[in-house]
Amino acid sequence: MRAAIAGASGYAGGELLRLLLSHPQIEIGALTAGSNAGAALGAHQPHLTPLADRILLDTTADTLGGHDLVFLALPHGQSAAVAEQLGEDTLVVDCGADFRLTDPAAWELFYGGVHAGAWPYGLPELPGQRDRLRATRRIAVPGCYPTAVTLALFPAFAAGLAGPDVVVVAATGTSGAGRSLKPHLLGSEVMGSVSAYGVGGVHRHTPEMEQNLSPLAGEPVKVSFTPMLAPMSRGILATCTVPARPGVTAQVLREAYEAASKDEPFLRLLPEGQWPATSMTLGANVAALQVTLDERAGRIVAVIAIDNLTKGTAGGAIQSANLALGLPEELGLPLNGVAP
Amino acid sequence: MRAAIAGASGYAGGELLRLLLSHPQIEIGALTAGSNAGAALGAHQPHLTPLADRILLDTTADTLGGHDLVFLALPHGQSAAVAEQLGEDTLVVDCGADFRLTDPAAWELFYGGVHAGAWPYGLPELPGQRDRLRATRRIAVPGCYPTAVTLALFPAFAAGLAGPDVVVVAATGTSGAGRSLKPHLLGSEVMGSVSAYGVGGVHRHTPEMEQNLSPLAGEPVKVSFTPMLAPMSRGILATCTVPARPGVTAQVLREAYEAASKDEPFLRLLPEGQWPATSMTLGANVAALQVTLDERAGRIVAVIAIDNLTKGTAGGAIQSANLALGLPEELGLPLNGVAP
Amino acid sequence: MRAAIAGASGYAGGELLRLLLSHPQIEIGALTAGSNAGAALGAHQPHLTPLADRILLDTTADTLGGHDLVFLALPHGQSAAVAEQLGEDTLVVDCGADFRLTDPAAWELFYGGVHAGAWPYGLPELPGQRDRLRATRRIAVPGCYPTAVTLALFPAFAAGLAGPDVVVVAATGTSGAGRSLKPHLLGSEVMGSVSAYGVGGVHRHTPEMEQNLSPLAGEPVKVSFTPMLAPMSRGILATCTVPARPGVTAQVLREAYEAASKDEPFLRLLPEGQWPATSMTLGANVAALQVTLDERAGRIVAVIAIDNLTKGTAGGAIQSANLALGLPEELGLPLNGVAP
Amino acid sequence: MRAAIAGASGYAGGELLRLLLSHPQIEIGALTAGSNAGAALGAHQPHLTPLADRILLDTTADTLGGHDLVFLALPHGQSAAVAEQLGEDTLVVDCGADFRLTDPAAWELFYGGVHAGAWPYGLPELPGQRDRLRATRRIAVPGCYPTAVTLALFPAFAAGLAGPDVVVVAATGTSGAGRSLKPHLLGSEVMGSVSAYGVGGVHRHTPEMEQNLSPLAGEPVKVSFTPMLAPMSRGILATCTVPARPGVTAQVLREAYEAASKDEPFLRLLPEGQWPATSMTLGANVAALQVTLDERAGRIVAVIAIDNLTKGTAGGAIQSANLALGLPEELGLPLNGVAP
Repeated sequence: MRAAIAGASGYAGGELLRLLLSHPQIEIGALTAGSNAGAALGAHQPHLTPLADRILLDTTADTLGGHDLVFLALPHGQSAAVAEQLGEDTLVVDCGADFRLTDPAAWELFYGGVHAGAWPYGLPELPGQRDRLRATRRIAVPGCYPTAVTLALFPAFAAGLAGPDVVVVAATGTSGAGRSLKPHLLGSEVMGSVSAYGVGGVHRHTPEMEQNLSPLAGEPVKVSFTPMLAPMSRGILATCTVPARPGVTAQVLREAYEAASKDEPFLRLLPEGQWPATSMTLGANVAALQVTLDERAGRIVAVIAIDNLTKGTAGGAIQSANLALGLPEELGLPLNGVAP
Repeated sequence: MRAAIAGASGYAGGELLRLLLSHPQIEIGALTAGSNAGAALGAHQPHLTPLADRILLDTTADTLGGHDLVFLALPHGQSAAVAEQLGEDTLVVDCGADFRLTDPAAWELFYGGVHAGAWPYGLPELPGQRDRLRATRRIAVPGCYPTAVTLALFPAFAAGLAGPDVVVVAATGTSGAGRSLKPHLLGSEVMGSVSAYGVGGVHRHTPEMEQNLSPLAGEPVKVSFTPMLAPMSRGILATCTVPARPGVTAQVLREAYEAASKDEPFLRLLPEGQWPATSMTLGANVAALQVTLDERAGRIVAVIAIDNLTKGTAGGAIQSANLALGLPEELGLPLNGVAP
Repeated sequence: MRAAIAGASGYAGGELLRLLLSHPQIEIGALTAGSNAGAALGAHQPHLTPLADRILLDTTADTLGGHDLVFLALPHGQSAAVAEQLGEDTLVVDCGADFRLTDPAAWELFYGGVHAGAWPYGLPELPGQRDRLRATRRIAVPGCYPTAVTLALFPAFAAGLAGPDVVVVAATGTSGAGRSLKPHLLGSEVMGSVSAYGVGGVHRHTPEMEQNLSPLAGEPVKVSFTPMLAPMSRGILATCTVPARPGVTAQVLREAYEAASKDEPFLRLLPEGQWPATSMTLGANVAALQVTLDERAGRIVAVIAIDNLTKGTAGGAIQSANLALGLPEELGLPLNGVAP
Repeated sequence: MRAAIAGASGYAGGELLRLLLSHPQIEIGALTAGSNAGAALGAHQPHLTPLADRILLDTTADTLGGHDLVFLALPHGQSAAVAEQLGEDTLVVDCGADFRLTDPAAWELFYGGVHAGAWPYGLPELPGQRDRLRATRRIAVPGCYPTAVTLALFPAFAAGLAGPDVVVVAATGTSGAGRSLKPHLLGSEVMGSVSAYGVGGVHRHTPEMEQNLSPLAGEPVKVSFTPMLAPMSRGILATCTVPARPGVTAQVLREAYEAASKDEPFLRLLPEGQWPATSMTLGANVAALQVTLDERAGRIVAVIAIDNLTKGTAGGAIQSANLALGLPEELGLPLNGVAP
C-alpha cells in the first residue's frame, strides 16, 4: 500500500515519515508541502536520511491522488478542502483538528467558524472505538493532550470510580506547537523556562477531552485544563485528578487500571511506585501510566507520559490506519523509547 | 552586620552568598560545610568570583558563633542541633524544614521522628506575618513549593472567594533537589524529560500549604499536590486551582488579587492576558502571578512563577532577615530576572 | 547621567537594561525600538520588573537626543545613520558591528557594502586600549566571539609565546543570534542538539579576531574559526589553540597568563586544574579562563567562558562606557554568575 | 542467534538492547549487571517496554555462557577478565577501551597499568577494516570520539590532502560519561552550560585517533583534542581541522569526500552548504558529515555529527558484529534520527 503525506515538511509530517520508513506494509508515496514545495525533504527533515533527496510537491488533489491512504498534517482548517477531493475508497487520516468534535456548538465556541463535521475518532483504546475504526475510510486523529488525558482517565470513568470535576495540568514539549516562527517558541525563550499558556478553560483541546470522557462517566464531565510549555522538544506529561467516588479504595482503583490496560498494546501501566517520565516514551507509540489514590484530598491522581508526536499524533494515526486497513494494530509502531 | 552561612557549598548556600554579595548592610562571615569543609569555595561555587579563595570551615558552634546572623542551609534534620548552640540574640534563619510545621501530628505523618517545634514562618506576604518577623530572632524559611502556592492563593482565600478543594500541579527545576548524587538527577536523565514524583498526597510540602491557607479560608483546606521535575536548573511554575465560590466574577477576582499584591514589593501581578514563565523570575526575588476564572469548570486558576532558589529559598530568607534586623524589607534583593 | 537605549526590546537591549538598573551613576532614559515601538517593555522583557510599564518609543534623533549617553543595540548597518544625528558630546556606544573593523577591505569581504569607519574598540583589556577609551565619545563594542578569543589569547601573543596559526572552535548559546524568527533557532530545533554554522572562514567575527591579535603577534595572525550553536540561551565557551613557540614551557605559559590577568578586574584565571564552564559566568561581566600546554601536539590550549550578552555585549559596553565617563571601570557590573 | 549483554543497566547496554529489539536475526538472551543485578530491567531502563520485566543477572561466565555473541558494556578494565572465560567460538564485542590500542606504550601513558592486548578494531569504514572484522570472534568497539574524528578525517588523509597537525574540538552529550554519580554530571550543573574537560592532550581517546589516522597519513599524526560537555543527553559534534596540503582545492577536497562516502551505508556526506547537527543523527547509526576548505587559514575543516550511543557505541558494535556473523552490515540498524 502506498501513502501520501501532506504537510511533509512539518513536525507531524516528519514523524509520520520516520515511522512509515519502518512500516513493513506501507510504502511512502508523494510528499507534499505548502510554501516549502520544491525543496528537497533533506532541507527540512535532515534526520530522515533515506528520504533526503525526495522533492516536496505542492499539496493538490493531483499529487495526493492515486494513493491507498493519505495522511493530512496540515494547518488547522485546511483538511476539509483537501479531503473532499480524495476518493471515498482512499483512507484519509487527518492529523488536524477539523473533524474531531461532534458538537457544532463546541466547535464554534472553541474554534469559531463553520463546523466541518466529525469523522471516526482515532483512539482505539477508547471503549468501543476499535470496531468503528476497522470500518472507516476517514479518521480524525485525536489531539495530543486529549490522547494523554483520555488514556489516563478512561479506566476510572469506565469503572464508575470518578466524579466529573476533572483537573488536568499538563506539560508539553515545544514540538506540539509545530514549526511556527513565534517569539515564544525561540530556543532562547524556551530553554531554562516553564511557562503557562491557554489557561482558564480556553484551550481548544478541552471540549475534546470532555467529549471523550462524558459518555464513560454517564454525565457531563467538566475539565479544568492548564497546559504548560516545558524546555524539551517532545513529550507530554499530564497530571489528571478527579474526585474519587465514595468507597473507592486503592485496590479497587489499581484493579480497574490493570483491567483496562492489560490487553492494550500501547498502554503501559507502570509497576506500583514507578512514575512516568516523558523520556520513557520518546519516539515510541507508548503511553506510560501510573495512578494512585490521594485519600487525604479524596482524589484519584493519574499521571501519564506520551510522546506528543508519536502516540500523540503520528503513531496514533498509523495505529488507527492499521485498523482501517485490516492490518495488525501494532504493525510498524515502536514500543521502545529512545533514552537517555 | 556579619552573617555566617552553614551549608555554603550547596545550592541554597550558594544562592545566599550570591545575594549577600550585593547586600549593602550584611557582610559575609564564616562559610561552613559538611564533607566539603577544607576546600576552597571556588571548587564548589565557581560562579562566585569574589569568594573563590575562601576556605570552607566545619559547621560547628565555634565557627558559626560571633556573627549577628546565621543562615542554616543544611540537610533536613540537622538545624535544631546547630541552632541550640547559637545565642538567643543571634538571628538564626533556617532554610530547612525543621521548624516550619506547627502541628506535631503533621510533622510525624510527613517527616517522621520528633517534632522540633515551630519558628516564625518567613513569608512576609502572609497576612499578619510581617509583624511577627520584625520581632523574632528565629525564622523558618518556607519550602519553595509552599512559597509559590501560598502567594498564588492567599488573595483568593483571604477574600473569601475560594472553596477548600485545592489542586496544585507544579513543575520545578532540578536545583530544588539540591546537589544530591541520585541517578534521576543526572543530566542525562533530566534533559529532554518531564517526570512526576511524590504523587498522591505524600510530598512533604503538602501540610505546609494547608497550614498557610486554612486560617485564611476559615476552614480546613485540603491540597492535592503533584510536583514534576522539569529540564531546567531553576524555577517553579505552579498551577493552583480552587473551586470558585458561587457568585464570584472575573472582576471581583481581579480586584482581590490587585488589592492583595499592590503593596507587595515582590509579588507581581501580571497585566491581564500575560502568563507567568519561570524565566521572568530567574535569579530575582520576585513572584510573577496571574489569575483567571474558568467559568465553565467553576474554578479559579492561579499560575505563579518563582525562582526556587531565590524567592523560594535564599531571597525569601534574606527578605525575612531584613525585617528581623530592622532593615528595609527589599534591601539587597534583585527585582530583575536574568533572561533570556 | 542619563542613558537612552535604542533597541530596547531585543536581547542585547534587555541585558543593557538589566545591568543599568543596578548601576549607581546611570539613570535609564528613553527606551526605543523598531517594530515594537508603542508597546510596553514588559511585553518583550518581562523579566525587568521595574521597567515593565515603560513604553517603547520610536528610534529617532528626537527620542535619543538629550541624553548623556546612548547605547545602540540595533541590527547590523543601522547604527551609522543614528549616530550621525547625535551630538559630538554625547557618548555613543554601538553594540553592533558597524564600527569595529579598521580595514575597509576586511569589511567589504566579510560584510559587503561601504565601510562606515572605525571607532575606538571597547575592549579595555587589550593592551593600550584603556587610555583610548578614556578619551572618546564613540565606542565600538566588540563582537561576542572576538571578546572571548582575544581575552583568551592576548596573554600568549603579548608574551611572544605563540605562532600565528590560530584554531578556534567556540560554542554559543542561542541568544547570540538575537530574537530573530528563524527556523533553526526554534526551541524544538535547538534543544538536544549542537550544530555547526558559519564554517570555513566565513564568520564575520574572524577578521575582528585577527585585527586584535596581529598587532600583539607582530605578524599577521590567521584564525580558523568554527562556531557552534549549543542548547542553552547564554554563554560562549571558546577553545583557542595556537602553536607554542619553541622552548615555551608550562611554567612560562602560566606566568604569562598570571601576569596578564592579575590586575584585570573581569579576567579570572582559574586555579590550575579547574576548567571553565559557561555557568560560571552567567549574567556576570566576567571571563573565566584556563590555559595549558599540550606538549605532545606542540600547542597552547586556552579555554575561556563568557556570557555572550554580559561580558560579550552589554557588560562590556558598560565597562567601556564607565571609562569614557570617567567612572570606575567596574561600576555597576556584576562579578557573580547565576548558578546552578 | 542469541546475544547476552553484560552491563545491561548502563547507557551503552540500554542502547544495545534498544537496537537489538529491532534486529531480525539476533535474539536477546541474558542481561547482566553489576550492583544492579537482581532488579528488573524496567527499574533502570524504563524506556525498553518489552523488556521491563526481565531480571538482571550477575555478570559471570555462567550467565554469559551459551550465547552466540556477547556484548560487553562494562566499566574500563573489566572486559579482559570476562572475555577470557568465554569460548573462542563466541563472538565477543567489547564496548570498553580495553582492547582498542595496539601500542602498549600509548596504553600505559593514557590508561596506566598493563596493556591487555588489541582486538580487531570495530570501525568498518576504516580502509581495509571490513575484511578483518568478517574474520574475527573478538571486536574492540572504538571510542565515541575516535569514531567521529576518524570518519571525519580519513577521506582527507587517505587522499593525501592533509598535513599531520590535527586540531579537534568536540562537544558531547552527557551520556558519554555513563550513568556515573558525579557532581558535574548532575542536571543542575549541566543544563544551560557548556564546559571543557580533559584539555591539553590528556583525554584517553587521543592516541586512538592518532592510531587510526597515522597509517593513512603515512606519517605520525598528532592530534590536539579538546572535548566539551554540552547540555544534551546524546550526540557528538566534532570540528576537525587539518592543514591543507599545497595545491588542494575545494573541488579536489569535495571529490575525495564523495568518493570515500558514496558506498558507505552509514556515512552521509551532506549536500554542500548544509552543516551537521547532532539532532540529525539522534538514535541513528549514521554519521552526518560536511567538509570545506578555509583558504584564508589554509586548513581543511570537517564537521561531523554522530549519536555517541548509537554510531558511537552500540550501533557501531552491532554493525561490526553483523560483519563478523556473516550478516548484512546494515541489518537492524536505524538510518533515521529522531527529530525534532
